[in-house]
Amino acid sequence: MKKILILGAGLSTNSLITYLLENAAKHEWHITVGDIDENTARRKVNGHPNGSAEVFDINDDMESWRTIAKADVVISMLPAFMHHLVAEKCIDLRKPMLTASYATKELKELDGKARKAGIPILMELGLDPGIDHMSAMSIINRIKSEGGKLNSFYSFTGGLVAPEYDNNPWNYKFTWNPRNVVLAGSGVSQFIHNGRYKYIPYHRLFDRVLKRKIKNYGEFEIYANRDSLKYREIYGLKDIPSMFRGTIRKPGFAKAWNVFVCLGLTDDSYVLEDSENMTYRQFVNAFMKYEPNVPVEIKLQEYCHNADDPVVFEKLKWLGIFDDRKTGLKNATPAQILQKLLEEKWKMDPQDKDMILMQHEFKYSMGDEDKMIVSAMAIKGKNQDETAMAMTVGLPLGIATKLLLLGKIKHQGVILPIHSDIYEPILEELKTFDIAFEEKEYMMG
Amino acid sequence: MKKILILGAGLSTNSLITYLLENAAKHEWHITVGDIDENTARRKVNGHPNGSAEVFDINDDMESWRTIAKADVVISMLPAFMHHLVAEKCIDLRKPMLTASYATKELKELDGKARKAGIPILMELGLDPGIDHMSAMSIINRIKSEGGKLNSFYSFTGGLVAPEYDNNPWNYKFTWNPRNVVLAGSGVSQFIHNGRYKYIPYHRLFDRVLKRKIKNYGEFEIYANRDSLKYREIYGLKDIPSMFRGTIRKPGFAKAWNVFVCLGLTDDSYVLEDSENMTYRQFVNAFMKYEPNVPVEIKLQEYCHNADDPVVFEKLKWLGIFDDRKTGLKNATPAQILQKLLEEKWKMDPQDKDMILMQHEFKYSMGDEDKMIVSAMAIKGKNQDETAMAMTVGLPLGIATKLLLLGKIKHQGVILPIHSDIYEPILEELKTFDIAFEEKEYMMG
Repeated sequence: MKKILILGAGLSTNSLITYLLENAAKHEWHITVGDIDENTARRKVNGHPNGSAEVFDINDDMESWRTIAKADVVISMLPAFMHHLVAEKCIDLRKPMLTASYATKELKELDGKARKAGIPILMELGLDPGIDHMSAMSIINRIKSEGGKLNSFYSFTGGLVAPEYDNNPWNYKFTWNPRNVVLAGSGVSQFIHNGRYKYIPYHRLFDRVLKRKIKNYGEFEIYANRDSLKYREIYGLKDIPSMFRGTIRKPGFAKAWNVFVCLGLTDDSYVLEDSENMTYRQFVNAFMKYEPNVPVEIKLQEYCHNADDPVVFEKLKWLGIFDDRKTGLKNATPAQILQKLLEEKWKMDPQDKDMILMQHEFKYSMGDEDKMIVSAMAIKGKNQDETAMAMTVGLPLGIATKLLLLGKIKHQGVILPIHSDIYEPILEELKTFDIAFEEKEYMMG
Repeated sequence: MKKILILGAGLSTNSLITYLLENAAKHEWHITVGDIDENTARRKVNGHPNGSAEVFDINDDMESWRTIAKADVVISMLPAFMHHLVAEKCIDLRKPMLTASYATKELKELDGKARKAGIPILMELGLDPGIDHMSAMSIINRIKSEGGKLNSFYSFTGGLVAPEYDNNPWNYKFTWNPRNVVLAGSGVSQFIHNGRYKYIPYHRLFDRVLKRKIKNYGEFEIYANRDSLKYREIYGLKDIPSMFRGTIRKPGFAKAWNVFVCLGLTDDSYVLEDSENMTYRQFVNAFMKYEPNVPVEIKLQEYCHNADDPVVFEKLKWLGIFDDRKTGLKNATPAQILQKLLEEKWKMDPQDKDMILMQHEFKYSMGDEDKMIVSAMAIKGKNQDETAMAMTVGLPLGIATKLLLLGKIKHQGVILPIHSDIYEPILEELKTFDIAFEEKEYMMG
């Protein structure tokens, strides 16, 4: 019996746990789900004969040591900042570890120790990061192996509400961590286009959107992700003249969101005075001039670009930003107040389904010919538990765990799924879950 | 013989050292100037019989211990982040200490220890912070003692080039730390107006300027300083409905500076790729869309509000931001590149003189009457050594040192010059150097 330990039983673990439990009998696995709340863990295991639930608290040093010592492989679904605590124990105890999170600097620094311990720490095995790497590398390596030269790689991902359930003026609902959505893009966004480095400061990000059609799903807009440049090295494309990664939203989202950025409502760096007793209307007003004889609505339309666009204004009004209703949030940052308001309005209803869109665009030269490959994936959630997000995050992780336990992953150290022996079988098995890319090749010009 | 130790012999110490040396014989002082570069210290002492120069390196623990142990009072003119290292030694050795810098959280936490040691650590004894506190408190306390109630306190300070030497399109030169000027205002600016908290995010700061006339000096514009709210407590004005502090510039400065903010050129948080080989023109272009068939100048006029205003555009062009000249700065942030360009153009010529402007505006009720006091100070530099900045930073510090050695300051702990026994004699003696406020009282309405 191989013992799999899953740490953390949050929303995004459903498909992972289901996949492993369904494969448990065949492969003789026992799956232990550890969570700070034992009931949450127990609900996920749901009485499965090959599963068990227990309390897990990474801050309880001795107890987490003991728990990890009993496992053959550890999957950390804890909040990202806790991964290195798990990783250090896994290294000491020589247990392979997997996560769906970014290989941060802190994690990468454990590479040497992990190699010495002879174990892999497989990171970025979810959707984004995860499926993006795997699907990109499979095409990049194919183009290279056929003698092609990559000139441009644009890649976009979005977590959206499925079109059938898209019924609010923003064409957006929270299908993922709301805090990350509110803070998305803060800092500078960097990419390269035709050999020119490009930098977009946060306050201009949402008026520098690209437009794209995605087959069967219509028009979308895309804003730049923070650091597209580092992917040149990860993907082995050090000298590629164009590299851009972005986030997909429905058209019109950025224009309205930009009003929040214009005001400063997405700032998470300081606390507002007496935020608890502030109404949402006063909240918006606090970012504009003192003009007691001008309605907040009118002031806003004069203060922020596009706020006077009726389509934008309707979105703002629908959210209730002009309401005389107290925030009720003590010592809150602007971003926290905005998040609270958005969570009320952008909540998924129980019957709502989410959707993941991902599109890669490769431009390359093959001999004298300039070509383009567009590779796109659209995944809809099945229900509240098996969301598109949970499936695309959890299944690659589950498959990787299986490969590892079957001895098919030989790597050691901190590893991303950019190696064909990892991504090929994962992408192959994902197809059986209808997680697949549709690919088109074009001749340029 | 009382021994005064001055740590750091930078540009802003001239007037301080001169003042203390001139008073040394009469009061029987010996002044030691310590600097990491002994020659700099020696030049400042200039062979004065009551002075001496020596090497001082705060990182040399034993040696700085020995140096401080020999002194009766220590004035730290080192970079602000080093003050707490000096303060800790002063506390251990029970030596009073003075600085012209902000009492940071780190410093304030030494208050208890300083009290236990029975010594004062006198902070914020320069211009801003310094003279601003003293002059404000002298009027605030007077209004209060006469039974008045303060409704509003606006206060502005600016370090500018004197009008006679103001000969560039920006009407501005660097009379102080260029880095601080480039980064000024980053973060959020907060103030209160008629009981309403107001927040201005950095990217809107320079289009939210106030206009003011300052007697004899014409029109100016003012942008908000970062945190005006904390001064309510410092000044004992906890419930004042309006409190605002700002920075003075000549009209038109903010409108042009705002173009840099719009582009993102003042960001100091990340390093540009291959910054060394970038020309200034490419630098500006890196923040705008890739449009190889549009000149950078035209793009900028379309991309940033007011960049097409001929007065603004002339300022930008004069700086050379469109020049095809390499920056030559390795691993530089945008702010560092902008600073390099500005330093070439905004340099004070040897004969140039600087000017400090400070204006306080108090609105208050006295019985049934609503009144206003405007109190303004304008100081011009005498020469390259005795700049307005050096005088207004150094003289209050020098005078405070004298008061301390004469036993006239009884406070212990970390202290600001908001107490009348400190600010009254300092303001009085500053008048003998023509550092004085002109005050006007008005009836409202």
